[in-house]
Amino acid sequence: MSAISLEELQLAARNHGMPLEALRYAVTPVGLHYLLIHYDIPVVDATEWRLRIGGLVDRPLEISLGELRAQPSVEIAATMECAGNGRARLEPHVVSQPWLAEAVGTARWRGVELGPLLEEAGPQDAAAEVVFTGLDQGIEGGVEQQFQRALSLTDAVESGAVLAYEINGEPLPPQHGFPLRLLVPGWYGMTNVKWLTEIELVAEPFVGYQQAQGYRLRAHEDDPGEPLARMRPRALMVPPGIPDFMTRHRTVFAGRCDLEGRAWSGRAPIARVEVSTDGGETWADAEVEPGPGPYAWAGWSHAWEAGPGEYELCCRATDASGDTQPLEPEWNVGGYANNAVQRVPVTVVPR
Amino acid sequence: MSAISLEELQLAARNHGMPLEALRYAVTPVGLHYLLIHYDIPVVDATEWRLRIGGLVDRPLEISLGELRAQPSVEIAATMECAGNGRARLEPHVVSQPWLAEAVGTARWRGVELGPLLEEAGPQDAAAEVVFTGLDQGIEGGVEQQFQRALSLTDAVESGAVLAYEINGEPLPPQHGFPLRLLVPGWYGMTNVKWLTEIELVAEPFVGYQQAQGYRLRAHEDDPGEPLARMRPRALMVPPGIPDFMTRHRTVFAGRCDLEGRAWSGRAPIARVEVSTDGGETWADAEVEPGPGPYAWAGWSHAWEAGPGEYELCCRATDASGDTQPLEPEWNVGGYANNAVQRVPVTVVPR
Repeated sequence: MSAISLEELQLAARNHGMPLEALRYAVTPVGLHYLLIHYDIPVVDATEWRLRIGGLVDRPLEISLGELRAQPSVEIAATMECAGNGRARLEPHVVSQPWLAEAVGTARWRGVELGPLLEEAGPQDAAAEVVFTGLDQGIEGGVEQQFQRALSLTDAVESGAVLAYEINGEPLPPQHGFPLRLLVPGWYGMTNVKWLTEIELVAEPFVGYQQAQGYRLRAHEDDPGEPLARMRPRALMVPPGIPDFMTRHRTVFAGRCDLEGRAWSGRAPIARVEVSTDGGETWADAEVEPGPGPYAWAGWSHAWEAGPGEYELCCRATDASGDTQPLEPEWNVGGYANNAVQRVPVTVVPR
Repeated sequence: MSAISLEELQLAARNHGMPLEALRYAVTPVGLHYLLIHYDIPVVDATEWRLRIGGLVDRPLEISLGELRAQPSVEIAATMECAGNGRARLEPHVVSQPWLAEAVGTARWRGVELGPLLEEAGPQDAAAEVVFTGLDQGIEGGVEQQFQRALSLTDAVESGAVLAYEINGEPLPPQHGFPLRLLVPGWYGMTNVKWLTEIELVAEPFVGYQQAQGYRLRAHEDDPGEPLARMRPRALMVPPGIPDFMTRHRTVFAGRCDLEGRAWSGRAPIARVEVSTDGGETWADAEVEPGPGPYAWAGWSHAWEAGPGEYELCCRATDASGDTQPLEPEWNVGGYANNAVQRVPVTVVPR
């Protein structure tokens, strides 16, 4: 495993993952949900703020927060994972936010459905993509920019996307995109533009930095690749027993140990979760129970009779499309979508 | 600057600092306040939970959360900083949670004053120290333990300590110590035992791991050192302009740039904040304004006429005791209390 530079540490110190013991919560408490903030958290005056919907539409809209809140709303529980989750486990080393496995969380998001709002604006026939712009501003790859991502008009209308102004029953805190963010259930985190200020319908494929350079799955430097989209299947476990502060190595007391965790896929429902106690040599099926909604992770559990010794615990999710997790990481240029199985070394000691 | 190991990254990925742009808030929103959690966040059933006060007291107490909440309460705004803040800037490298400068936050904590509660229990004449035990359990330095720290009985009664069950008007979230934590205003973070379950009055100096081995200021390996206690003075600034995603290097547009930040000391009120734009060669006084309470950071600001070029911005706090910040880090074995001045390189470009 490569060492982490000071620059990567600067990112790791301000962004943060979800401590894995928080997999115990079906809905992640605010403050434990993972966060990746490319630039600075902008300060937004909600009374001045407006959402503009424009471009190739018949009726451009400009909407205040009060007007949005007065519209019919929906609440969806959605699991969100950073596309860069698992990056720090890749060799050769990929330099960017150095996630291990913890860049995930599940929240209840309340807001206005995107599809009907776009219908209200009246997309013109030429409209093919929808570009979402946030108020966060910075420089990346030498390009000064506000954070922007696009969806096809079809995905924007049919994905179940929500313009969210609440998380877990509270107004969005600054770090989650106050006053409004996009939430596209099942898609990797970069899709869900925070501090949303503008939605523009366009005719040509969007070539902004985060679509054309960043967040693409590229096998090698000359591969133009594909934009990241829906989350690959992944299962994670609550690390059992107690940790060593510095190494995080786990000590488990011998006897029955209930392994538990969560599993998700942005592509299909979770069909199966398996557990291994020997580093992936042999596997047993875990019990799977539904999560807090169709877009949220499923719970899983497995009773393990732990005898003294050294073990490497693993878990593996398979979704209803048959997609499953690899045992070893699959390298790519940007270090994205590494859903290799989690490995948790534990020492079981007599009680 | 030394590279960071995978083990340190494991800590950096689960604990997190306050992104420095959040210095804009006099009271830090929950989720942006720094967090350091030694072991795992414990799951606590608030209906079963009790606080026990025992040891050398005439009237041992066992108190439910409802009983605590029914007592007269106070709310204090307090700035809290990890004793390890600045550790990653030390050479030679000190291996532990690798903070740069962001392990700080200010919250409004509501709870019951500790002093009167101890009086109610009736400390016996032999009682000299008060040991606080949390429910979080792990291994550190080879010692299996629950997190424990002690105060002298005098400090426990006279420091203004509160047993807090609310943060910023809400029940404590799990990561801040639900259902109850100690809050000793002005002291470094390790003092403020989370998931508090027991308070024991003892006659002899407490020699638990976090008091006798960890969290001591030791000049060299043979130095027994002193336990960390009150926070040293420190000023931090909101990094101006816009960041580069990866390097976090700042670009500022030429013209008037309002530098701003916060400053605190656990030892005396902030008397002065100075700003340098040339790496600490020359200094100008910033304007200082009171914070949200006597235990909370003060605000500061300074108007800078920024012309194109390269600059190293610094800020420096001095408290009313005359204590100030060093220009260079002062190394110690555990990597504690490094309050060297913050340095923010910026490039000013024409508008």
